Amino acid sequence: MRIHHLVALAVLGAMTTLSDEGMWLLNDPPREFLKRKYGFELDDSWLEKAKLASVRLNSGGSGGFVSKEGLLVTNHHVAADSIEKLSTPGNDLLKAGFYAVSRDQELKCPDLEINVLQEIIDVTGQVNAAVTAEMALAQASSARRAVMSQIEKESLDKTGLRSDVVTLYNGGLYHLYRYKKYTDVRLVFAPEKQIAAFGGDVDNFEYPRMNLDVTFFRAYENGMPVQTTNFFKWSESGPSDGDLVFVTGHPGATQRLETLARILHRRDVTLPYSLARVRNMEAALRQFSEQSVENRRQAATDLNSIANSRKAFTGQYQGLLDPLILARKKSAERSLIDAAHRARSQASGQPDSAASAHLAAPDDVQESIEVVAVIQAKLKTFEKEHGLFETGHAFSSSLFTAARHCVRLADELPKNSSERLREYRDSNLESLKFQLFSPAPLYAGLERAKLTASLTFLAELLGGGHELVQLALAGRNPAARAAELVAGTRLFGPEERRRLVAGGSKAVAESNDALVLLAKAVDGESRKLRLRYETEVEEPERQAYASLANVRFLAYGKSMAPDATFTLRLAFGTVGGYEVAGETLKFHTTFGEAFDRSSKLERQPPFDLPTRWIEGMSVLKLSTPFNFVSTADTIGGNSGSPVLNRAGELVGVNFDRNRHGLVRNFVYTDVQARHIAVHSASVLEALRKLYSAPLLVKELTGN
Amino acid sequence: MRIHHLVALAVLGAMTTLSDEGMWLLNDPPREFLKRKYGFELDDSWLEKAKLASVRLNSGGSGGFVSKEGLLVTNHHVAADSIEKLSTPGNDLLKAGFYAVSRDQELKCPDLEINVLQEIIDVTGQVNAAVTAEMALAQASSARRAVMSQIEKESLDKTGLRSDVVTLYNGGLYHLYRYKKYTDVRLVFAPEKQIAAFGGDVDNFEYPRMNLDVTFFRAYENGMPVQTTNFFKWSESGPSDGDLVFVTGHPGATQRLETLARILHRRDVTLPYSLARVRNMEAALRQFSEQSVENRRQAATDLNSIANSRKAFTGQYQGLLDPLILARKKSAERSLIDAAHRARSQASGQPDSAASAHLAAPDDVQESIEVVAVIQAKLKTFEKEHGLFETGHAFSSSLFTAARHCVRLADELPKNSSERLREYRDSNLESLKFQLFSPAPLYAGLERAKLTASLTFLAELLGGGHELVQLALAGRNPAARAAELVAGTRLFGPEERRRLVAGGSKAVAESNDALVLLAKAVDGESRKLRLRYETEVEEPERQAYASLANVRFLAYGKSMAPDATFTLRLAFGTVGGYEVAGETLKFHTTFGEAFDRSSKLERQPPFDLPTRWIEGMSVLKLSTPFNFVSTADTIGGNSGSPVLNRAGELVGVNFDRNRHGLVRNFVYTDVQARHIAVHSASVLEALRKLYSAPLLVKELTGN
Repeated sequence: MRIHHLVALAVLGAMTTLSDEGMWLLNDPPREFLKRKYGFELDDSWLEKAKLASVRLNSGGSGGFVSKEGLLVTNHHVAADSIEKLSTPGNDLLKAGFYAVSRDQELKCPDLEINVLQEIIDVTGQVNAAVTAEMALAQASSARRAVMSQIEKESLDKTGLRSDVVTLYNGGLYHLYRYKKYTDVRLVFAPEKQIAAFGGDVDNFEYPRMNLDVTFFRAYENGMPVQTTNFFKWSESGPSDGDLVFVTGHPGATQRLETLARILHRRDVTLPYSLARVRNMEAALRQFSEQSVENRRQAATDLNSIANSRKAFTGQYQGLLDPLILARKKSAERSLIDAAHRARSQASGQPDSAASAHLAAPDDVQESIEVVAVIQAKLKTFEKEHGLFETGHAFSSSLFTAARHCVRLADELPKNSSERLREYRDSNLESLKFQLFSPAPLYAGLERAKLTASLTFLAELLGGGHELVQLALAGRNPAARAAELVAGTRLFGPEERRRLVAGGSKAVAESNDALVLLAKAVDGESRKLRLRYETEVEEPERQAYASLANVRFLAYGKSMAPDATFTLRLAFGTVGGYEVAGETLKFHTTFGEAFDRSSKLERQPPFDLPTRWIEGMSVLKLSTPFNFVSTADTIGGNSGSPVLNRAGELVGVNFDRNRHGLVRNFVYTDVQARHIAVHSASVLEALRKLYSAPLLVKELTGN
Repeated sequence: MRIHHLVALAVLGAMTTLSDEGMWLLNDPPREFLKRKYGFELDDSWLEKAKLASVRLNSGGSGGFVSKEGLLVTNHHVAADSIEKLSTPGNDLLKAGFYAVSRDQELKCPDLEINVLQEIIDVTGQVNAAVTAEMALAQASSARRAVMSQIEKESLDKTGLRSDVVTLYNGGLYHLYRYKKYTDVRLVFAPEKQIAAFGGDVDNFEYPRMNLDVTFFRAYENGMPVQTTNFFKWSESGPSDGDLVFVTGHPGATQRLETLARILHRRDVTLPYSLARVRNMEAALRQFSEQSVENRRQAATDLNSIANSRKAFTGQYQGLLDPLILARKKSAERSLIDAAHRARSQASGQPDSAASAHLAAPDDVQESIEVVAVIQAKLKTFEKEHGLFETGHAFSSSLFTAARHCVRLADELPKNSSERLREYRDSNLESLKFQLFSPAPLYAGLERAKLTASLTFLAELLGGGHELVQLALAGRNPAARAAELVAGTRLFGPEERRRLVAGGSKAVAESNDALVLLAKAVDGESRKLRLRYETEVEEPERQAYASLANVRFLAYGKSMAPDATFTLRLAFGTVGGYEVAGETLKFHTTFGEAFDRSSKLERQPPFDLPTRWIEGMSVLKLSTPFNFVSTADTIGGNSGSPVLNRAGELVGVNFDRNRHGLVRNFVYTDVQARHIAVHSASVLEALRKLYSAPLLVKELTGN
């Protein structure tokens, strides 16, 4: 450990509040804090099990193994993408639910991949060594990408494990994550969506809540269920008020360590763009859905996902317009500058003057903060275009995504892995192709509706006369252009995608598929925008944040966890209710409250309960705890996260946070903010009484 | 008639296509055309009856008298605003429908005013005489407003009639419209919204259609039903395929005579703004609605109206992104320039050289077109702010509207009528106060939701740090600010509004009502924006368009009707179906098709039928024509328009146009574009068989 690090810690102390903030790295967990606040000894075996029994789903959520035979639990809303792909026009599994009574009835998901973290290695030195101070930004950016790809490639070759270099503290640290990967994942049990997402969009991000938001999958390897000793024992009783609980999972993204200028850029540029985008898409999906029962089935997952984003963005936006929240961010930034001052003056009095010379000067902190501000001003000039073309918001369609991958694979594969666009590096290819060659069905009407909406959004943002808009629309209006594109493509199934990828640049050059032609037409501009982003934003931000991170480590040590990165983290908190407008909300709800709410809302969707529940009400123990809340620190991506007790047993499945928790992107608060989980006892009661699933219960409990 | 006018007509000919385009002035109807194409003699008595039996509703639609005792018909969706205001939490008349079996059961609408046109007088000379070429724009603008107010005031004083000076051809002509006004209007009959708006937003702007979109009111005067001989006889049989029909009504706004630059400004600035605005509000209203059955009732009318705007704007936007439509606009502009050339060269060869000297030169045409383009560039710099603050999109709330009227009345009333903001001129005061003092209920939750959404929209557009945003938000985020404003106002009922208006500037200055304070706080900026708009956009556009109109009159005579202005117009067309993708759609639908569509859509809202219809299906003649279409030229505001046959009998009630007709803002087309009307026979069949309304049928038919 570096000497000045110790010095600073001693002088400044760690953050003194005993808040439960933090999505902690598993290789740098808050052992001291847990011991101090909760008297809990986080030992290595507890941690190791948490690591090896927690899973990440490529559909964007978390889960955990819950039996020695590869059974795993996640949220229904995380599984919905797979459940929808396993449904057909005649057989809507989202609506009806599903239970495989025997192994041979389990349904293989077409493109679900799960990752289980095996190992974390700090590669910060190696990454930073590849970038020297003399390099221009473009050179630095490509050198950094190259070294990251190279580290991953070497790791893959050596271990056979999926290997990702993860950027932590926005550039402060680089860690290599190695995952075991499963691509044969089968659906075991899903309840009806009506109870999994009871209250729908209305109750999303709200509490009290009554959702059976769970689904069980089973991971297979070589055609056999995965055998593992690393699984969470399912708790019969679940948590009690005041209990310490842990959440293991893969929070997607937070922005707590970003500078004020970056946050204000989000408020004034990024979020208004995102809100406009999701409102446009939500309106389109809703209209598509309402046209027929089958349309509703096809669009259900997209619609839920976009409505969820709309609520999340709305909450973030209200948060950033709240002067109190901004004041907190401002004061944190000021504190960092002050801390740098103090650390420097303290260190300069120390005998180890060589070390103090390397300390970031307060001026450097100020300068890094200003560098980030300048970057935002630059980003503002092309962020919309970057989102529309490179991120692909102008072409929201699974068909376009496939077309772009085919086009880019042809360009990228001939290159050395470390010179490719990140997503096409060798270490990622298998996962990428697994998704690209998915046999999951696509629907022409839905693709057309999404393309129409997103091409319209493109024109709205840039104007109908804009060169790039005219390039994309090719002489038609958005509706006609979308119809033409969807009618003119053969990318609905995996065959043509395989053919194009196998045929490489010749096949792509010869293709007259309408979407391939579009992807080719916009690729030059899209790549230009990406390069600008990487060179003018990503790399200089990494450098500036690296400098800020060093000051922060010096000042506070690692008492602040890095922002979320969709990698495994450990959070912890206390189970407990809270007050809203003078009313106390209990730490848990019950089955009975679901029936009450349904009848109060006249059983109208989204407050209608499945027939099974209405008919089974009399046999259910209505006082069974259904959902519960704790102060643990979560964000999107934590959906499906195991909630564990001190013994490492699974007492709940996290599925949401309340609306007070929507500002957690920027600040942690525990006055009213809570994450929400399905109580482990409710799952057992429902499986036993309503779903006649004794074998599943036995697998979970051993009884 | 001016000689060069005749000359130009003779040389250029009228437009030679026999299209049914045109929303014609009743004092300048297309008699020749009707005779030539349809062999129909439009005589004065036919016209006079059409004028005196057609009505305009202040809720934004049209209607017509249909009995000698003041009974009038309009659309259910036009009446919905009043029906909602007559409903209460326990008694939702939109849902249940309503029928007053006897006169004493008829329900007086709290703030519905209807206007019946009595007389049109050309005042172009008088208006233009007040504005001289030497005047600066600001002076010209205020002189023009002053003379218009003065003409209206004199007319009101002289006749006692509501008097409005209407700007036609965007400034080419000014006509004085005198209306008889009724403010005691009572609800007689409304069907259930489920059948009035069967198919809801999904089927809105679509055909085939099966909507009983009618409502009957009765106009009263001095407590007695209005006695009139000017009413439309209700046709038992309705129209047949190929029939000539007429539509009398009050189309709101079209943009067909606008220059290309203006249209492109709409495409690239106005419509994207409007789309973003309505999507934001629709999402907010939908979320509010879904929270409870009572919320749904409260927000129903707002939600329908905003969803309707969303569809209309979407159609307009797709139209303006259609290169074919733009090509038509371009070619029309070129033709106008060419026509000016020809007219001038022709006229210069005539002996009447004095007249020819007054002809607009082709250069003038070009110049006027360029002036309009320059205005758009200027408008672009403050149109958003103008919409947000002066139009009030940042404060979408009936409470704010009331607050602003109170604040502005205090400022404006002490001024001379002709110097006031237009809406506060003497001739408009009675109508304005009738609405302002309405006892119709307002709901805190709904107002809060709308204010939150619109304040959020404000921040999104201008940025959270913008001075005006901070002024409006006053140190809170939008949600908290909206809650504070709604909690801090007493403007829910008319009492406080009356008190403030009666107390004038002293009462307003002393008021600490939160919304009054907000209205005062933003008034300076709002007025500045309004003045800029009037001076930099409205007045110079009027001048430029006046010059273009003169050229147009010269070139084409009055063979093109002026753009719609929410004043009485006469349209005509042929009843007839059309083809879509090879399929022929008949000119009418039937009752049977409503039942078919409902069962196909599994009776899910918005495709559920009222119980009365399901139970009464067996007694209904299912082949009864339900809705029909014709080529007549309509636009928003025509909702509720009587559709008449040659004999002047009412054969239908217009309620919509199909999606192909959404581009009619900019161009008329009749290949697939149609307006849609309720067939007169369907109303009688439903009233007889389902609604047990023999007295109403008797009043309509005499039987």
